[in-house]
Amino acid sequence: MFTISPSVRVRPSPYFEATVAAGVKSFTTYNHMMMPTGYGDPEAEYWRLINGVSQWDVAVERQVQLLGPDASRLAQMLAARDLEKCVTGQGRYVALCDHSGTLINDPILLKLADDRFWLSIADADIIFWARAIAAERRLNVSITEPDVSPMAVQGPMAEDVVASVFGDWVRELKYFWFRETSIKGIPVAVARSGWSKQGGFELYLMDGTRGTNLWDIVREAGRPWDIGPGNPNHCERIESGLVNVGGDTDDSTNPFEVGMARFIDLNIGDDVIGIEALRRITAAGPRRHLIGIVLEGKQPLPLPSQWSPVLRDGKRVGDMTNCVWSYRLNANIGFGLVSIETVAGDEIVVLKEGTHVAGRLRELPFC
Amino acid sequence: MFTISPSVRVRPSPYFEATVAAGVKSFTTYNHMMMPTGYGDPEAEYWRLINGVSQWDVAVERQVQLLGPDASRLAQMLAARDLEKCVTGQGRYVALCDHSGTLINDPILLKLADDRFWLSIADADIIFWARAIAAERRLNVSITEPDVSPMAVQGPMAEDVVASVFGDWVRELKYFWFRETSIKGIPVAVARSGWSKQGGFELYLMDGTRGTNLWDIVREAGRPWDIGPGNPNHCERIESGLVNVGGDTDDSTNPFEVGMARFIDLNIGDDVIGIEALRRITAAGPRRHLIGIVLEGKQPLPLPSQWSPVLRDGKRVGDMTNCVWSYRLNANIGFGLVSIETVAGDEIVVLKEGTHVAGRLRELPFC
Repeated sequence: MFTISPSVRVRPSPYFEATVAAGVKSFTTYNHMMMPTGYGDPEAEYWRLINGVSQWDVAVERQVQLLGPDASRLAQMLAARDLEKCVTGQGRYVALCDHSGTLINDPILLKLADDRFWLSIADADIIFWARAIAAERRLNVSITEPDVSPMAVQGPMAEDVVASVFGDWVRELKYFWFRETSIKGIPVAVARSGWSKQGGFELYLMDGTRGTNLWDIVREAGRPWDIGPGNPNHCERIESGLVNVGGDTDDSTNPFEVGMARFIDLNIGDDVIGIEALRRITAAGPRRHLIGIVLEGKQPLPLPSQWSPVLRDGKRVGDMTNCVWSYRLNANIGFGLVSIETVAGDEIVVLKEGTHVAGRLRELPFC
Repeated sequence: MFTISPSVRVRPSPYFEATVAAGVKSFTTYNHMMMPTGYGDPEAEYWRLINGVSQWDVAVERQVQLLGPDASRLAQMLAARDLEKCVTGQGRYVALCDHSGTLINDPILLKLADDRFWLSIADADIIFWARAIAAERRLNVSITEPDVSPMAVQGPMAEDVVASVFGDWVRELKYFWFRETSIKGIPVAVARSGWSKQGGFELYLMDGTRGTNLWDIVREAGRPWDIGPGNPNHCERIESGLVNVGGDTDDSTNPFEVGMARFIDLNIGDDVIGIEALRRITAAGPRRHLIGIVLEGKQPLPLPSQWSPVLRDGKRVGDMTNCVWSYRLNANIGFGLVSIETVAGDEIVVLKEGTHVAGRLRELPFC
């Protein structure tokens, strides 16, 4: 175990003091900020998400705001998904690809107005990408990182907690839709979203000075449901088949390889970045796909620090991109990014730290 | 003190095992990798750099490689400095700006061939920036992150150590120049460079499987000079006036504000990104500049986690962007990014954690 050094270059979150008060023990970094990764009891934090309600500092989900007359055009150029029917108050999960069709980010796009969008991004400097495209195409749009810091409330009891704070109207919110509101003078956008499959909401705090206030409001409101602190849960997200762009993808992964085909529209305009490449990739057929791996053995393995080669019949067919002990399956599981000929049911071997671990492929999600 | 979580998304360095063996205690992250930040005795590590020789894992200085017929054109479009006279084997410190003249990175550009360049980057996803520009301008260039991981050897004794490994020819290398060579079959480029003002070299390891080998070769060669592990030194770099892009800069900082005017050539082609904005900024005159701050008091202050407001005559004139206890000056020092009217000798007040700390401005560097 190593400590993480304080640094001006790696910013704390508006919820930092609240998470310290809640007993945070470990962090990772993401979008040049610190993100809590544990409060000392991984298994309890996992079951709280599965059975109750968990409160997460996900301020690292930074927003890239597109504002101005060409904001809508730019949003469509960046996202390989038809946004024509997306209305104000709606969010869409989108693939950002580069010109060769490689997936570079998978944000939620939130439409706040006809001329204002947020891209709630995974870990990468998409602001430079968006600015380069906008400037090179001479679009009239301002691209900034606004003062917006999401907190997630996740788990089967999340709706009750969020409704108790904001009112029963939140129960009517459709998935990825959101509404701007405020609580005790704190401006927030309430969205039905979050990086788990247990249901829940993300509260987009729009005033970074009020992080502790918002955290405490949710914590107090959640007491009847025994809310507690947590974070995007490595185990649950793997069980649920959620892709981590930058972790499960490499520098040549296209969206079709990681289960994002249903979020790609090939019939949109030719000025959408990567669309021609995505059409070519579709025509040629994908070479790899993401699939589940269940390893043999009934003891948790150490967390991997790198991708691990996957062999079938002694030949390398791809990589295991993550690995975690599943509390629900009582097995070590993970994703394989493997050749398309390698399918569920296949017996494989994973090379981990110089040893061979046997396993079997299966469909995603696990749970 | 918090621990840093293992993550596939934050890669270890090829020198990771060697630094663990050397007793690394803490890390930061940089370019999606882990970088050692301390081995348990900050003051000894500092004096080793000032008086002896220190060995650093700076594999996080990732390379963005530009390769192909248009590599040279793209390099010049990205860097606001005339590269016409840059020859193979030469490196140049360059400012990468966006179209509005904002500084987005300050890499060393290394020319490996007429059609092959590396940008040895600070902490940002410049690969997306470079790919966006290249694709939008339809340049014939391949942009990748090659298997290249620098190790730095820094301090007044560094030259003796590196010469003992590679030969006396390294003594003739001019600053930022480099040569490709190998040692015991390990391919490296040896450059006279490094993020300190104590002199030294960076060894660009070109085979990530050989990190421990290269580390051990340098460590063994350095024994007569009492080499030891270290890392880019917060204290020394502030004393020396070295700018940390991303730490000392914000989303509107231009290169003139942070002492980079001498690395900008305004007479280069109009297709250089940001050049028109940089000309306008020059004509209007800069609004801010980077300056030294010496605080009163003879006890080390806690490291800041954010910029701290700087007041002169009760009015905010800018921010203190970093702060460190200087072992040579026996004072807390740091940089101010302040209005151009605020000059050396001015008495100021810095707001830190709700308290007022008096100080005085002075020219950079401190030492």
